[in-house]
Amino acid sequence: MKALTLRAEWAPKPGYDISEQERALRRPRNGNMTWKSPALELGNVPDPSLKPDQVMLEIAAVGICGSDMHMYEAGPDGYMLYPGLVHTPNILGHEFAGRILEVGADVKDLQAGDLVAVEEIQWCGECSACRRGFVNHCLDIEELGFTIPGAMAQYLPVRARYCWKLDEVAERYGEEEALVMGAMVEPTGVSYQGLFNRLRNWQPGNNVVIFGAGPIGLAAEALVIAAGAGQVIMFDPSASRRAIAMNMGASAALDPIGIDLDDAIMQYTLGRGVDTVVECAGFADKTIEPLDRCLSVNASIIDIGMGGANPTVPIVAYKRMGVQYAGSLGHAGGPFMHVIRLMAAGRIDMRKMVSARLPLDEALAAFKRLESREDAKIILQPN
Amino acid sequence: MKALTLRAEWAPKPGYDISEQERALRRPRNGNMTWKSPALELGNVPDPSLKPDQVMLEIAAVGICGSDMHMYEAGPDGYMLYPGLVHTPNILGHEFAGRILEVGADVKDLQAGDLVAVEEIQWCGECSACRRGFVNHCLDIEELGFTIPGAMAQYLPVRARYCWKLDEVAERYGEEEALVMGAMVEPTGVSYQGLFNRLRNWQPGNNVVIFGAGPIGLAAEALVIAAGAGQVIMFDPSASRRAIAMNMGASAALDPIGIDLDDAIMQYTLGRGVDTVVECAGFADKTIEPLDRCLSVNASIIDIGMGGANPTVPIVAYKRMGVQYAGSLGHAGGPFMHVIRLMAAGRIDMRKMVSARLPLDEALAAFKRLESREDAKIILQPN
Amino acid sequence: MKALTLRAEWAPKPGYDISEQERALRRPRNGNMTWKSPALELGNVPDPSLKPDQVMLEIAAVGICGSDMHMYEAGPDGYMLYPGLVHTPNILGHEFAGRILEVGADVKDLQAGDLVAVEEIQWCGECSACRRGFVNHCLDIEELGFTIPGAMAQYLPVRARYCWKLDEVAERYGEEEALVMGAMVEPTGVSYQGLFNRLRNWQPGNNVVIFGAGPIGLAAEALVIAAGAGQVIMFDPSASRRAIAMNMGASAALDPIGIDLDDAIMQYTLGRGVDTVVECAGFADKTIEPLDRCLSVNASIIDIGMGGANPTVPIVAYKRMGVQYAGSLGHAGGPFMHVIRLMAAGRIDMRKMVSARLPLDEALAAFKRLESREDAKIILQPN
Amino acid sequence: MKALTLRAEWAPKPGYDISEQERALRRPRNGNMTWKSPALELGNVPDPSLKPDQVMLEIAAVGICGSDMHMYEAGPDGYMLYPGLVHTPNILGHEFAGRILEVGADVKDLQAGDLVAVEEIQWCGECSACRRGFVNHCLDIEELGFTIPGAMAQYLPVRARYCWKLDEVAERYGEEEALVMGAMVEPTGVSYQGLFNRLRNWQPGNNVVIFGAGPIGLAAEALVIAAGAGQVIMFDPSASRRAIAMNMGASAALDPIGIDLDDAIMQYTLGRGVDTVVECAGFADKTIEPLDRCLSVNASIIDIGMGGANPTVPIVAYKRMGVQYAGSLGHAGGPFMHVIRLMAAGRIDMRKMVSARLPLDEALAAFKRLESREDAKIILQPN
Repeated sequence: MKALTLRAEWAPKPGYDISEQERALRRPRNGNMTWKSPALELGNVPDPSLKPDQVMLEIAAVGICGSDMHMYEAGPDGYMLYPGLVHTPNILGHEFAGRILEVGADVKDLQAGDLVAVEEIQWCGECSACRRGFVNHCLDIEELGFTIPGAMAQYLPVRARYCWKLDEVAERYGEEEALVMGAMVEPTGVSYQGLFNRLRNWQPGNNVVIFGAGPIGLAAEALVIAAGAGQVIMFDPSASRRAIAMNMGASAALDPIGIDLDDAIMQYTLGRGVDTVVECAGFADKTIEPLDRCLSVNASIIDIGMGGANPTVPIVAYKRMGVQYAGSLGHAGGPFMHVIRLMAAGRIDMRKMVSARLPLDEALAAFKRLESREDAKIILQPN
Repeated sequence: MKALTLRAEWAPKPGYDISEQERALRRPRNGNMTWKSPALELGNVPDPSLKPDQVMLEIAAVGICGSDMHMYEAGPDGYMLYPGLVHTPNILGHEFAGRILEVGADVKDLQAGDLVAVEEIQWCGECSACRRGFVNHCLDIEELGFTIPGAMAQYLPVRARYCWKLDEVAERYGEEEALVMGAMVEPTGVSYQGLFNRLRNWQPGNNVVIFGAGPIGLAAEALVIAAGAGQVIMFDPSASRRAIAMNMGASAALDPIGIDLDDAIMQYTLGRGVDTVVECAGFADKTIEPLDRCLSVNASIIDIGMGGANPTVPIVAYKRMGVQYAGSLGHAGGPFMHVIRLMAAGRIDMRKMVSARLPLDEALAAFKRLESREDAKIILQPN
Repeated sequence: MKALTLRAEWAPKPGYDISEQERALRRPRNGNMTWKSPALELGNVPDPSLKPDQVMLEIAAVGICGSDMHMYEAGPDGYMLYPGLVHTPNILGHEFAGRILEVGADVKDLQAGDLVAVEEIQWCGECSACRRGFVNHCLDIEELGFTIPGAMAQYLPVRARYCWKLDEVAERYGEEEALVMGAMVEPTGVSYQGLFNRLRNWQPGNNVVIFGAGPIGLAAEALVIAAGAGQVIMFDPSASRRAIAMNMGASAALDPIGIDLDDAIMQYTLGRGVDTVVECAGFADKTIEPLDRCLSVNASIIDIGMGGANPTVPIVAYKRMGVQYAGSLGHAGGPFMHVIRLMAAGRIDMRKMVSARLPLDEALAAFKRLESREDAKIILQPN
Repeated sequence: MKALTLRAEWAPKPGYDISEQERALRRPRNGNMTWKSPALELGNVPDPSLKPDQVMLEIAAVGICGSDMHMYEAGPDGYMLYPGLVHTPNILGHEFAGRILEVGADVKDLQAGDLVAVEEIQWCGECSACRRGFVNHCLDIEELGFTIPGAMAQYLPVRARYCWKLDEVAERYGEEEALVMGAMVEPTGVSYQGLFNRLRNWQPGNNVVIFGAGPIGLAAEALVIAAGAGQVIMFDPSASRRAIAMNMGASAALDPIGIDLDDAIMQYTLGRGVDTVVECAGFADKTIEPLDRCLSVNASIIDIGMGGANPTVPIVAYKRMGVQYAGSLGHAGGPFMHVIRLMAAGRIDMRKMVSARLPLDEALAAFKRLESREDAKIILQPN
């Protein structure tokens, strides 16, 4: 079958502390310390085979994520930009939906023909975190498109338990559109997890501030608007991203550079301040750290964006106002169900973020085009 | 000033157990056991005076509620229909907004010219329930328009702490419309309290069933749609109310009479079942009691509607699926803030429920017209 | 190996609606409608073998549960008393702990020599309930000692993911006692799930009422006392059980027959009423249904006990006071971790409920002895 | 009556930004920037009078708090150490209990002879924070013993709504001991608020780390042990305080200076890590900031202690493990009820922290003695 494969040169940086197991599996926890000269290759690979607990998917739509770009791009020293867990060679693609061609012998609740979106986080289901229901924090994780083959290919076998049916969405929009929307469930789920599953204290009517208008920030925007936000104030240095944010319904979209964040937030909330802050920019030291006078009583700060220096928090303000600050990671489990329902009921339409739908054959051009960061999301359609 | 006064004859039913204090204050806990031949009178009453902790309101808009109708209407035995706490003679009106004319000497955060919506529940702030933050369950309550003078009048002095400013709404819609919307905050708050403040487990994407498409049920519908509901299934025997419910965005609006509720709910949720059930019909024995196979894992049932027999609950289903069933009452405190924010952000527009805006002079005709229950909500405008 | 096997005659009652699959597997959902003349047999059975994801346990301690008694006992019509899911012939035993003899090839976190307690609920990990973290409400469940072989035997292979290590308990009490305590984790977990994992609103200082002083009620008592209950009022008609309850630290233990429950609860809480009610008696229509004036603002009622008629609830009281009523089932997932920790820290010592430790050879006598219901808990020690 | 009065010289530091209102009221937000040469004076002051919404208390017991010491002590520059809101001259004392001598005309639920503990935070009940139930975060606060007269005197009139009856405690321990315990409700409530009312996610069995073994840390220790903690690990540099902590039931009490906190916590939890961290030392940059590998999935960090530099938080660890970090302040509202119940049920006995009970006449000596910080808590008994 046709597939897009990431290749790179194994060259751990001198002094980087790497375990025997990481070395043996070529699966380091920090791609940017080990993989040099990353490159993409579009070509034929052997067809995959099916295990009894898996379904075989014909991939209909797969998004290109910022992490995909960071595995493809290298820094000045020639090393991959992506700082997390990554193996090569590997087929990329972890935001996707497809049609089931065949089900393994042990699969009970799915059948050929079903349309599904799939969790990227391949949680083990055996560790203490999984058994307590915290599958996003699985202690023995694999990741589709990072450590094992992903969906930028014609076919992909995936374990049935990571699949969520799209029939509710297809009922409303038809199968073709349901599959495109299905590819957006994963990134939207990341924001859903942070907003609604971490602290479990969302209240409709909350004033919201979102830092970063990339895909995760825009998904957060769509979700809070769908969930009854009061004022929604977005911050992003990019004018084009701010325009998208306004178009998706923000109350205001501001350039954070050089302004007093507290003042701006108090102004756009008529002096009430903010109840929910979402960090999707990856610069908590620049975004969360300065927030002080704008925090309402019982405000919650959710930190999703990866990157940047550790923030130094104004803890007296957090005490005086009863503020909580939580880290969030992943999207597995319930968020898939809820995001699909929000799509099926027409509450969110993440297609607004899609700037192009391209065949897999144009994958290399698509990655090239995304280097300028002017598109919000490109969807590849392998079949 | 002009005011609409409820009068009735004090005639406790023989055998009704009434306390000395209830007798002395003519403030019985069950109006329908004590007050005979209720009648409304539109006329002049002395202008009210202002206490130091109060603001004087010029009333701009006041809704006629089902409870108002039940105080005005009598049953076959001639007794008032309303079963709760009521004193007469009294000026009616507890869903309202107005403009502040003057503030008392001790008032800090409000000033003349401010537009405000006002809590009906005059919680004491001193009892153990209030001090724990459960002001809706105040143990020493007064109620505007029930036990003390209400807002179907030109002016009303109210304690500052029950007022919530409408400036955020006026910013979006202008003052006149903000005042009409302001009169809808109270009934909308009743549903907000039940949905979002009682069990605190709302999740966007939840499938919702609402029993009753009267004002409280329709407010619940508007709120869950604004808060990201999945499918929203309404039940009401009235075809005209079902039409309004569909118009406000329900996925389905069904006549519950003679159908299998479980089957219907499973059908309209594509087999997923319901996550949130809201009882706004006042017939829990007919609505909550039969729900069994349609309950999803972790489903929540919120019971707001007053009336009907006590329900016998299918407790094995509640155990098997991990279901919770909660009673809800009132709307005081935070719900006012959040409902106003939802209005200000354009997430809900409760004017959709308003079928007429009439001057106070036409109040008697308005009550007459509502006897047929064909209107959803009539707003009186005293000034 | 030696094992205690339950046998019964397959005789579905006329008119009982039984599916093809239930018939084929002889695994009906209602044992009391299908199995006649149950009998226990102590004897030798083939040694079990190990799968790659399992560990082989040498069983050290296994409790006899009320459900075990109900599978063993027949009613006047000769049918098994137990109303739930049951297959025969089957080895009984689902409250147990043991030492790992050998681990399967795929097992990562356990090794030979480890002491473990084991979940009875063999949740599938694949259904939507499991994937959302609600493993107690697994839609495709197996149960050790009910539908598949249990622990009243010398050895038992169990899947690693259902095992929880007892090293923290052994650190405090030594291995032998840790294994006896380990057999009590399962029944204690049932109460933990209801009290602390369902509504997630426990507050230290809550006044508590517990109905039923059998093993589940006594476990609830131990847990709420360990978790900082205010007054703890137990109700049970059995004088001997009330004596145990008082011995374990109850503030009061009362016979519920013929008294006004509201009055009694108000008296023993000095008029404050109850914040947490736990139903462990299996008679919600006699216990939950009458509670009205004794319910505090924001009171929670947790219903664990199986049996009895559906309760008719005083819904006006639930509204007036803001009360929630929740069903609870099972104990899988996190409760095992937390119960083990409570044991390890010395906060609960469930050995207080154990009236005898007997070798497996005396199992038949132990079941006989329990027919009188005078013992709280008998532990069998197969090795 | 006899009273202990704090006097100081009004001398705002040059450059300190002080508002007109602060200047007019001599009620600055930072005592350490304005008040010089603080001194205590024991002498006679006029008897206080009673307002209609107040009760007159005969003070039975009042604790000396760290804040009292910081108002009494000056730094090298001669300025008061206390950094918060303070007025002088003022009678000190905010941790106290007393007997009601007389009730004002408007008081309903209290009567002469009642024993009560009293909230220090005189929340206004009118601001948006109070109306939403967040009385600890009142936006218009007064503080007994800081900005208005406190309880180191024979009598004190206090508004009825800040009083909580001690009858439940007196029922168990008698009136005299109930009054001493009552003086400990306030400081214990500070820890209760942080542990159980802020994030509302306490689970019995949680492993706990507490930084600081002063009165607030020891109260936190007593509370988590009473609430079913797993391992409880205390950190304090003072050997004598560690000894008290061990005596009160800690699993371990360690000197944090010069050790790796992560390693120590992993060791004392047998590798499980910590679920609940409580900062009561006032050095979040030294205590919270270093915690990384020891944080369990879903760990919560509660920051109560005032002082120290802002912490720089290891946000990647918070994301990876799903950690939340919350500020907590105060104790008003529900915590008083729950702490009193814990005392009444014998779950906590804060008298363990009391090293002396002295008459008010010995107040000056008591403050002197406390300068060495060797006592945990001294109780003054004015009557």
